[in-house]
Amino acid sequence: MMRKFHEITGTETGAVSGEAGTIGTRKVYVTGSRPDIRVPMKEIVQKVGAQDESGTELLKIYLYDTSGPFTDPGAAVNIRAGLPAMREAWIEERHDSMVLSQLSSEYGRQRLAGRVEGGQYFPEERLPRRAGKGCNVTQMHYARKGIVTPEMEYIAIRENQRRESLPELLKKQHPGDPRGTRMPQVITPEYVRDEVAAGRAVIPCNINHPECEPMIIGRNFLVKINANIGNSAMSSSIDEEVEKMIWAIRWGGDTVMDLSTGVDIHETREWIIRNSPVPIGTVPIYQALEKVGGQAEELSWEIFRDTLIEQAEQGVDYFTIHAGVRSNLLEAAQRRLTGIVSRGGSIMTKWCKAHGQESFLYTRFEEICEIAKAYDVTFSLGDGLRPGSIYDANDEAQIEELKTLGELTETAWRHDVQVMIEGPGHVPMHMIQENMDLQLKYCHGAPFYTLGPLVTDIAPGYDHITSAIGGTMMAWCGTAMLCYVTPKEHLGLPDKNDVREGIVAHKIAAHAADLAKGHPGAQARDNALSKARFEFRWQDQFALGLDPERAMGIRKALLPEDAEDKEQYCTMCGPDFCSMKITRSLREGAAGGKEE
Amino acid sequence: MMRKFHEITGTETGAVSGEAGTIGTRKVYVTGSRPDIRVPMKEIVQKVGAQDESGTELLKIYLYDTSGPFTDPGAAVNIRAGLPAMREAWIEERHDSMVLSQLSSEYGRQRLAGRVEGGQYFPEERLPRRAGKGCNVTQMHYARKGIVTPEMEYIAIRENQRRESLPELLKKQHPGDPRGTRMPQVITPEYVRDEVAAGRAVIPCNINHPECEPMIIGRNFLVKINANIGNSAMSSSIDEEVEKMIWAIRWGGDTVMDLSTGVDIHETREWIIRNSPVPIGTVPIYQALEKVGGQAEELSWEIFRDTLIEQAEQGVDYFTIHAGVRSNLLEAAQRRLTGIVSRGGSIMTKWCKAHGQESFLYTRFEEICEIAKAYDVTFSLGDGLRPGSIYDANDEAQIEELKTLGELTETAWRHDVQVMIEGPGHVPMHMIQENMDLQLKYCHGAPFYTLGPLVTDIAPGYDHITSAIGGTMMAWCGTAMLCYVTPKEHLGLPDKNDVREGIVAHKIAAHAADLAKGHPGAQARDNALSKARFEFRWQDQFALGLDPERAMGIRKALLPEDAEDKEQYCTMCGPDFCSMKITRSLREGAAGGKEE
Repeated sequence: MMRKFHEITGTETGAVSGEAGTIGTRKVYVTGSRPDIRVPMKEIVQKVGAQDESGTELLKIYLYDTSGPFTDPGAAVNIRAGLPAMREAWIEERHDSMVLSQLSSEYGRQRLAGRVEGGQYFPEERLPRRAGKGCNVTQMHYARKGIVTPEMEYIAIRENQRRESLPELLKKQHPGDPRGTRMPQVITPEYVRDEVAAGRAVIPCNINHPECEPMIIGRNFLVKINANIGNSAMSSSIDEEVEKMIWAIRWGGDTVMDLSTGVDIHETREWIIRNSPVPIGTVPIYQALEKVGGQAEELSWEIFRDTLIEQAEQGVDYFTIHAGVRSNLLEAAQRRLTGIVSRGGSIMTKWCKAHGQESFLYTRFEEICEIAKAYDVTFSLGDGLRPGSIYDANDEAQIEELKTLGELTETAWRHDVQVMIEGPGHVPMHMIQENMDLQLKYCHGAPFYTLGPLVTDIAPGYDHITSAIGGTMMAWCGTAMLCYVTPKEHLGLPDKNDVREGIVAHKIAAHAADLAKGHPGAQARDNALSKARFEFRWQDQFALGLDPERAMGIRKALLPEDAEDKEQYCTMCGPDFCSMKITRSLREGAAGGKEE
Repeated sequence: MMRKFHEITGTETGAVSGEAGTIGTRKVYVTGSRPDIRVPMKEIVQKVGAQDESGTELLKIYLYDTSGPFTDPGAAVNIRAGLPAMREAWIEERHDSMVLSQLSSEYGRQRLAGRVEGGQYFPEERLPRRAGKGCNVTQMHYARKGIVTPEMEYIAIRENQRRESLPELLKKQHPGDPRGTRMPQVITPEYVRDEVAAGRAVIPCNINHPECEPMIIGRNFLVKINANIGNSAMSSSIDEEVEKMIWAIRWGGDTVMDLSTGVDIHETREWIIRNSPVPIGTVPIYQALEKVGGQAEELSWEIFRDTLIEQAEQGVDYFTIHAGVRSNLLEAAQRRLTGIVSRGGSIMTKWCKAHGQESFLYTRFEEICEIAKAYDVTFSLGDGLRPGSIYDANDEAQIEELKTLGELTETAWRHDVQVMIEGPGHVPMHMIQENMDLQLKYCHGAPFYTLGPLVTDIAPGYDHITSAIGGTMMAWCGTAMLCYVTPKEHLGLPDKNDVREGIVAHKIAAHAADLAKGHPGAQARDNALSKARFEFRWQDQFALGLDPERAMGIRKALLPEDAEDKEQYCTMCGPDFCSMKITRSLREGAAGGKEE
């Protein structure tokens, strides 16, 4: 198969004028081996070097772009219509799934039948798709059969970030300390396939979420981050949640979990999925609990099963399943300082105690796999017993649960169902490596997806920072995806601004870990930004940063009103004390007074 | 010498009412072997356990307190009068210094003579103190003579944080990974003395800053943080700077550097020092440069020397001296991506180039030592060649300069002058341990005082977070004090709110590192906070946090208006989905329905 990577088409999104500065930030698409593989990237175009009549030297830098069509001025975005079903053709042409004539979930059908005037329903009523009889539609299944899917090729292009186009200076980087990860210089579609086949990476992409831009989670790829949104009984509306999702991906969220526990869970999720270019995860037990009026003991396998199918047919890409909470661990959990802090874990514990039985998530796990493989829902095996305090870190309850999650991973893999493992929680810095090592050991290399971890308990109001610290360490050790924590953690649900703070903090963590691991090309963005900083190309510096608006806003507010933004000094030190200005003047002096 | 530690007197500062909650946060003083050794601590008094008629069980927890008399309602604070000269008697009774009849610095005398109507002068004109002829007044000098000073005893009490008073549960902690640090269970005054004598720790306390509450910086003690304040040509006033200092220590700044480069440097510093209970550091070359109109080539040893004396007689506790910037390293620095980013380093480079000479900071270093030991000014040997980007991390220029700083350390120690070493800057996570190892090797165990480091360059506007990540790692590896970075780093000077953000981020880093090292008792605060969290004692949880006001404000804003703050669920998940509520109810169920 001939691949013609890197054919780029683009639309100007944020052209900024300026002397020797960014001449534009564009949303571009890199085309793969077929015209419908179009991978979005953010292109930063800088003017650098000599600018005489012979023309300006342009330096283009490509950044990973999670923001979807919302940042493409060429795309017609309409929240009420949802995003284009980009993957529809790929799914259809595999001829292993079919469009159903009605919803398979009883609740889904009741919901549809019981629609009321004035309800906030998503306008289009889609019919869901499901695997054909005897078929398995997971990416892992294809991978194990040796098939390279368009999703895998898309991911390969995306992960490479066009770094071969960079000038040598920007490519230079420190040899990392990979701590067991293997990162090839170039990610090929075949490499993606091999990693998925081996279970070391997952591609969460439900066949009912064709709007999703494929992405991969695995420790031999770029570190990803997840943003949690969702309403609770306390607050929030559908509009707000959709807005938070769009806001989350704008700042770099790679996946979004809808953790709604309040009203309108079904509808909220529909709006989110139809508008989401990133995988959406959920914790189905939350909705199941709402269905039984919040009484955990009223839960049943039948209600849970119907909820899984309901959500799978909406297009949820991954399910958190707390199947590792087993009755033999509850005593160990009761000895803790802070007991069970996972909501799913505590719900299932209550159920087990009330019924004196092993959890149906565990006993029915094979049946859950059957559902997952009919839609390609990835499992995120929940750590219902994750420690909720430094005191409880790496304790018996957590580690024993991890062993169970490892068993369940093998079960899922027998069904070719993709699996990642959720991780703590609260872990002091020096116990993070051990936690990672045990996860790899017990869970056979399945990707780790950790909440932080928080490296101390003493900073309520600032836990995005305690989490970013632990997250950096954890991702360096091999965690594939970090679940963000916002400044409201332990206190309340995040609003839009908290989402931004949480995302940026964890983008920092993920990127710092890529640098530490020595991920090929990771340092290019740092190099480019620092070069722009040293050359007083402010717009370029900001365009390359994680939050251009905030950085630009800070500088603008500090510059004297009459100052041009091309001022050759930093607003921190003022003109006389600008070390970079002094160094540059010395360098120019050495070069005979010429601008270099 | 009989020591009667732990006699506590206190004043109520922030009593908060509440069911089973904090009954008070008090500023208390622990008295040492003599009545004028009164070590401030923040006492959190909680009601816990059974609350029947036999009385309430009180749990008192003591926190390190940097906030000075400003948080003591029993103290009469008046910014125009300055703080009480707490150490005056200790300094006098050593009989090795004398009060001068006039300022020794020519500039100081001119400034005094040239006072103008309406100038912002500190009301009291103090006469400075200086070592007697042939005397050496440094804490290192006393330590090496085997003397335990009141400062050392004060520090021992302060570092122990009364942890012997804690119940066993709170004392429990994970064995740390000390990475070469040795931390005894109890810090004795003799241990403080030994560490200072060995050069592994410094006590910055100029004899002209008797208002200073003694503290120690060394890797075998609690990790400290510094906050930079100071105006620039761009902004800020004296009032603002004094306010920032008070704000900085309120949130936990252990030392404050006044990096003013604008107008009124001398007066700004006087107001700050007279009101500061924490050591004040400066970079004297900044003021020297102001004196020559911002022209680095006009600097001279004479002007610099006079500036050192001027500042030493005001009471500056530590000087950053960029004496390691030597001409043989300038070529290596020019090969960098971002050249020289230290202001002091770039100023001295310019001077060296203009004069074709080695820097006077280096050639006159013995004379600088003579000044330092006459006032007990600690050196903070500046890393003029610290890397300003990930690209330049751990490069030849930095490491070679470190070797020079090691030489200079030995020179200073021959004079019994206290030394710490400033460190980078920008270092990716995986190169931090190496950086620390080289510092220990070349600088003979002198305390490391690092700016961050920032673990990536790509987050302008959020560099307090990139710095807290690197700072945690660096402090775990053995850095004794972290210099904070605020969200405005690279963009502008911090305002009051940035100071708070920067401080809290780095308090998190310092504490997380103490936990990782296994500092005795470090986990007690985490344990107490998490216990309060699990027991829904919201006020206690917040009182134990780094920023009670913020955490309380977030919760208040989210609670329904009619809710009582004693609500037994978390504002994050709402009543039904509160995992802690569920776990607690299960635990109570197991205990026969009784509150435990």
